[in-house]
Amino acid sequence: MFEKSVYLKRRAELLARLKGQSGIAVFIGNVDAPAQYRDNCYKWRQNSTWLYYFGIDEPRFAATVDLESGEETIYADDFTIDDIIWMGPMPSVKSLAESVGVSHSAPYAALDQAVSEAKAKGRQIHAIPAARYYNEMKQRSLGIDQASEPLIRAIVSQRLVKDALEIAEIDKACNLGYEMHTAARNGIRVGRIEQEIVGEMEAVTLAKGWGPSFPTILTQHGEIFHCHTHECIIEPGKLMVIDAGAESNSHYASDFTRTYPTSGRYSARQRDIYQLVYDCNELAFSLTRPGITYREVHLAVAARMLEGLKALDIVRGDVDSMVADGIAGLFMPHGLGHNMGLDVHDMEDLGEDLVGYDDDQKRSTQLGLRSLRMARRLVPGNVVTDEPGIYFIPALIGQWKKEAKDGGCVNYSKLETYFDFGGIRIEDDVLVTPDGARRLGDKRLPASPDEVEEAMAA
Amino acid sequence: MFEKSVYLKRRAELLARLKGQSGIAVFIGNVDAPAQYRDNCYKWRQNSTWLYYFGIDEPRFAATVDLESGEETIYADDFTIDDIIWMGPMPSVKSLAESVGVSHSAPYAALDQAVSEAKAKGRQIHAIPAARYYNEMKQRSLGIDQASEPLIRAIVSQRLVKDALEIAEIDKACNLGYEMHTAARNGIRVGRIEQEIVGEMEAVTLAKGWGPSFPTILTQHGEIFHCHTHECIIEPGKLMVIDAGAESNSHYASDFTRTYPTSGRYSARQRDIYQLVYDCNELAFSLTRPGITYREVHLAVAARMLEGLKALDIVRGDVDSMVADGIAGLFMPHGLGHNMGLDVHDMEDLGEDLVGYDDDQKRSTQLGLRSLRMARRLVPGNVVTDEPGIYFIPALIGQWKKEAKDGGCVNYSKLETYFDFGGIRIEDDVLVTPDGARRLGDKRLPASPDEVEEAMAA
Repeated sequence: MFEKSVYLKRRAELLARLKGQSGIAVFIGNVDAPAQYRDNCYKWRQNSTWLYYFGIDEPRFAATVDLESGEETIYADDFTIDDIIWMGPMPSVKSLAESVGVSHSAPYAALDQAVSEAKAKGRQIHAIPAARYYNEMKQRSLGIDQASEPLIRAIVSQRLVKDALEIAEIDKACNLGYEMHTAARNGIRVGRIEQEIVGEMEAVTLAKGWGPSFPTILTQHGEIFHCHTHECIIEPGKLMVIDAGAESNSHYASDFTRTYPTSGRYSARQRDIYQLVYDCNELAFSLTRPGITYREVHLAVAARMLEGLKALDIVRGDVDSMVADGIAGLFMPHGLGHNMGLDVHDMEDLGEDLVGYDDDQKRSTQLGLRSLRMARRLVPGNVVTDEPGIYFIPALIGQWKKEAKDGGCVNYSKLETYFDFGGIRIEDDVLVTPDGARRLGDKRLPASPDEVEEAMAA
Repeated sequence: MFEKSVYLKRRAELLARLKGQSGIAVFIGNVDAPAQYRDNCYKWRQNSTWLYYFGIDEPRFAATVDLESGEETIYADDFTIDDIIWMGPMPSVKSLAESVGVSHSAPYAALDQAVSEAKAKGRQIHAIPAARYYNEMKQRSLGIDQASEPLIRAIVSQRLVKDALEIAEIDKACNLGYEMHTAARNGIRVGRIEQEIVGEMEAVTLAKGWGPSFPTILTQHGEIFHCHTHECIIEPGKLMVIDAGAESNSHYASDFTRTYPTSGRYSARQRDIYQLVYDCNELAFSLTRPGITYREVHLAVAARMLEGLKALDIVRGDVDSMVADGIAGLFMPHGLGHNMGLDVHDMEDLGEDLVGYDDDQKRSTQLGLRSLRMARRLVPGNVVTDEPGIYFIPALIGQWKKEAKDGGCVNYSKLETYFDFGGIRIEDDVLVTPDGARRLGDKRLPASPDEVEEAMAA
């Protein structure tokens, strides 16, 4: 938890952004999420919006903010003697509330009454979308059927711009992510089981942080984006995609991807594609600065990628037309990046479009571009990922060929020789600064083909 | 997943145990549990009852079993091309269903129809209690207001007795737990942060198993049972309680506790209490055999504990009377043990009393004994934990003294000198065999005071 003044300032700022709105805003913190049964839960994780405004890192807290009077109340139950036996001495709700600058507190059940009284008076109830099933049930029981767009917009506009305190925390998470990836890279050896590397890598963030910031991707099938099984033996000559990050003890995320040659050196064919992805990553970073939209950066990367694939005779034709036709989506069916902060996809629970798109932007329907989570015009304090990738996905390529979706620009006979290739992604975390951008964390993970091979040989 | 025949046999057995019941049984598997938002979920964990009868280790599956006709249907959705891009080639629902011996399959949404048709015909709907919030919502939406006691009883009676296949899996989980604890013990050094040991220990099960079987307890405050923060620096002369276990890749649990002297050797005062807890653990193991109730074993431990505390002049009076008066609860406010299997507290979601108590047993209201999760008469194939502990909990002692709850048998002036002591617990996992009991896992973790000190010196 930060100093009390941090939360007072954040809530005052939120209230100012909501000036003119009437009613009350309701914030419902998380409860423990059962893994097996109510007493065997997953590792505790507080709701990020709650953490941002109220900081208290304990389950079963809620709060209301009166948008007109500014009155704030925190709802939670004090501990009984039984709780103290099982969980040790705990501070009172009142003292926790005071530690984040909230002077009123009440039992958890009083939230129901506060909301129903406000509703009875015809007042508006503002809430964010429920990210977890418990919160969905709780909101339903409170009669909150719909999230409040004004509240979401106010929160998004505020949380999109990270202040110095937050940037320092993200730097810490990135340093921990650097250590995780270093441990993983050092563990890659033909004949080991993938899961062993996962364990060694996650140990780093469990030992020094909150844990992984999302379920680790570590796979010799980089073309499968959400591959969460790690049973395979590491084979020679493969590419291993490792997409993993740390959550710091203050709950800020990092998110890095590197793609390693399992034998320590890239083959000529692997190196060609790797170099191209690396060039795309570098291009994106060089373009990232206030004033440009991240959609423009994504499209510049798409153009660079298609140029490179054209040089390899995998696609043929005019690059600009291919960009316009969304051909890059066949090779990179995801977006260039997303916002990052307290969440690894920051505020994704608030709605991808409201978080990642300006009012004058419309989300594309093209494969790849439609998955771009962050398209906004950049301002200093934005934190985004830069994560281009090239994948050869037999099922997708087969579908495009069958449906002639490429308009004739794809050289399928060449492309089909890549069916056993897998995929490559290179991802860094980037802060938009007043005059450009900075890669977060003290040191950058080895990224160029030479740097990676050198690090693996060390 | 095991062979198809395992699931066919288990379901046939269940159906036989439900002979005479009418209607359909509904099994709802887990869905992914969001940690931050719907796309950033906790590590996938299937529902244990589902795993036991249907084995398919994928989210968003459900099944019905017609208790009269025996007809079985699995409900799940096949993957789209988009799913395949993100998650790779996946077997069809039909082939997954066939792999566990179920010949009918239908889309997930068809479950709603199947249940409402059955209800319309006035048929009974049997379901187990919802362990997670999603399942609670789903059951509500299906109009299932109440769990079925006949179904719970049939499942409990079956799952309480582990067969050779399950015992082999629990042995594996115990071997992994042995490795975890060995890594932890080797990591204890004054000056380190507790969290570092947690990371090193959890790495073992992440590298070779599914992960920890429950949130790790690792604390120099053993008197706080559910202490899940690990921020403290390891101090000299303290006792460190480590209660942690592994979940194997087949989802069976282990659960061990050891209490280490942070400086490598127990002080004389620590050794006295440690020896007593060790004697209680040994006594419980020696009594564990078919025919005895685990309640009797708990009470024998309570007597042994009070004898030892009497020898230390912490309590005074007749041991049998003190046992009857529940005085042991002041020192061990938890039960001696619980069932273990696919869940670390096996089947706790099905209701503690139906799982842990015979029909002719009544749960106690005494502190300690009332928390006994497993009280049943033992039969071969039961797997239970043996986990006595002695704790000095200032808040609890203060409450007993103030309310004179001890009837005069507690020597508070002596007891209060233990306020800085902490707590000690020693826990093994035990299989009830036809002629006695066996500690699970190939090797027992060092347990006696000498064994522990020797292991720490190594």
